[in-house]
Formats: sequence, C-alpha cells, structure tokens
Amino acid sequence: MNNKGSVVIISGPSGSGKGTTVKAMLSQRKQVRLSVSATTRPPRPGEENGREYFFLTKDEFEKRIQNGDMLEHAQYCDNLYGTPKEYITLCTEKGEDVILEIEVQGGMQVKSKLPQAISIFLIPPDRKSLEKRLRGRGTESEDVILQRLKRADEELQYADKYDYVVVCGEMQKCVDDIFAIIDSKKLESENMIDYIKENF
Amino acid sequence: MNNKGSVVIISGPSGSGKGTTVKAMLSQRKQVRLSVSATTRPPRPGEENGREYFFLTKDEFEKRIQNGDMLEHAQYCDNLYGTPKEYITLCTEKGEDVILEIEVQGGMQVKSKLPQAISIFLIPPDRKSLEKRLRGRGTESEDVILQRLKRADEELQYADKYDYVVVCGEMQKCVDDIFAIIDSKKLESENMIDYIKENF
Repeated sequence: MNNKGSVVIISGPSGSGKGTTVKAMLSQRKQVRLSVSATTRPPRPGEENGREYFFLTKDEFEKRIQNGDMLEHAQYCDNLYGTPKEYITLCTEKGEDVILEIEVQGGMQVKSKLPQAISIFLIPPDRKSLEKRLRGRGTESEDVILQRLKRADEELQYADKYDYVVVCGEMQKCVDDIFAIIDSKKLESENMIDYIKENF
Repeated sequence: MNNKGSVVIISGPSGSGKGTTVKAMLSQRKQVRLSVSATTRPPRPGEENGREYFFLTKDEFEKRIQNGDMLEHAQYCDNLYGTPKEYITLCTEKGEDVILEIEVQGGMQVKSKLPQAISIFLIPPDRKSLEKRLRGRGTESEDVILQRLKRADEELQYADKYDYVVVCGEMQKCVDDIFAIIDSKKLESENMIDYIKENF
C-alpha cells in the first residue's frame, strides 16, 4: 500500500451537490482534508490565514506562480485566487486525501500539472433535478435561472475530460462512490509494488 | 451508469485466500456470478452441465477454440479446460459481475482478449503469513512446502501485470476493497457518457 494520500479534484455544475458532498466526506473520514486556496484579497473579520485562505500580497502570489507553486490560478474582481501546491503536498505526505472543490477550468489546470490526481465530475441525477435544484435556491428571475442552466449545460460538456463521473442523487451513495474511487486508486498495482517489495 | 456487468479476473498465489474471498463475494452480492469453465473430462457423479462445468467433447472444445470462443484454455492430464466467452457475455449483458478465479497464465490470456476486464492480484499480508498458510494446510513434507513457496514467489512476479493488487488479510476488508474496485470501474467517465446523454 502506498501510504501517500491522494489529490481529489471535484467539479460539477452549480446544483450538482458538490458542497454538501464534500462536507459529508470531511465529516465521515478523518484523513480527508479540504485544500486551502491562496488569495490576494484582504482577510475579512474572523478569517484566519491558512484556514479560510492563505492570504498573500500580489507580489508573493505572482512569485509563487513564477516558481510553479500554484497548481492553478484565476483572477476575480481584481483579486487573484489559486491553489498552492505546497499545502497539498504536505497533506498527502502525511497520508491525507486532499479534496479540491474547484470549477472546471481550474480542475483541468490542476489535472494537467498533477496527472496522478483523481478527477471526479459530479452530476445531478437528471436534467429535471438539476433544474429543480437551481430554481429551488431562491426567488431569482427566470432569466437568471435560464442563464444558470445554460452555464450548467456548458459545464456538463467537460464531464468526459474527468477520470470519473459520479451521480449525486442519494447523498450517502454519492459519498460511498467517491470513497470507493479513492480507495481503489490506492490499490492500482503500480501503487502496490513497494508494498510487495517490502513484505515479500 | 453503464448497466453492463464487469468481468473480474482474480489470481494470486496458493495461500493468498482467493477461494475464501470469492465465496464471501458471492454470498454478499446477488449480482456477482462465478464463471463456469468448460472441460473435456467426463462429469463426475452429481456434477451438472453448466453448473460445475460445461462438459464438451474434444471436438466441440477444439471447434470453440478455433471460433475464438475460448478466452483461455489449457491442458491437464489429457483433458482440456477453458473459459467460454459466451457464458460470460450472457452474464454481463444481464448486469452481473462475473468472477474468473484463475491462475496467472490464464488470467493474462483473458486480459489480452478482454482488455476491459478488471484484473486483480490477491496477496497475503506478508511472507510470514504466506508461509503459515501454506504450512497450515496439512502434514506435507518440508520439500512440498518449499516447492509451494517457490511457486508462490514465481507467481508474485506477475503482480504488476495486473490492474490491481489487493492484500487479503482481514477477509471483509479484502472483499470491500474488491467491491470498491468493481464499483469505481463503472464510474469511469467513458462508462458514464451514455448516462449523461440519456439524462441531460
């Protein structure tokens, strides 16, 4: 058994149930960790460096990009956001499985830099439940709903770029499926060769 | 979700716990089936065609080989033994996962003809427990034990030719690991594309 943890990229359209799934995973397995992003936006009251985000200056952030220490990054509203490699490596070295809940562009960037990462695309059971989840969120106008559905349709096109696709209908089934994927990855023969060498 | 069942090749040295594991899998999941081999040896009292074996004449068996209907075959003591493709296809079409408990040569033959099959190599936790299991079987002479160990060592060399390696220490853990492998295979994105097309 390879004692290193895995990097698990989880993406999926809005309304796929990503957030709830990741929360359930964290509560059910001690060795599951959520990746901490880096950002150049200033901390809000109550936010702690290294917990909500790693808070960096623009200079520090850009230096990290240049050094190849950011697995992916993007800019929103003048602020940079990204995934630092270092934190993830620290976790996996300790045997922790690190979850990156991330949109498709970022997910693809991480996968290209970290091919051994497990990429999982979450989907709702069908179009009807996707629409219901998107509508159920509040009192948005039909225009906003239609925009979200369009966006979801675009994101669904990325499903086949991921290693796995998991249907998020019944929550525990979805969590169990993801755990099965993580567990089976560790049993791939290339990850077991060291175990055999050490024990036989 | 691809509703087809999987073909699961299970190999491992004598003393790896293959037999017990497969029995536990069959008892715990209704959709798990054991592959039925074909043979040219005559049925023994109580044996039923299609249950213990498919009993074929030598002519029939050889015709099947020529038609490419045998996924693997070998000769022991003047009799031919083999794995007919047809039975396996019937099972997987019904959504059943078919287990082939088979030695390494046969396992490799099946994998080369059926690349989508999941190949799993079972090992005992370590050399000490392998030796204990081989000795524990009866009152064989030291020579026989040493021969078995040598054979096991040779078979262990094949581990990295398999897709997965599973340690068979605590039985239920081993069974759960194999089920995780089978389940995760069905979630590979190429097996989920049809699901997305049908439901979105």
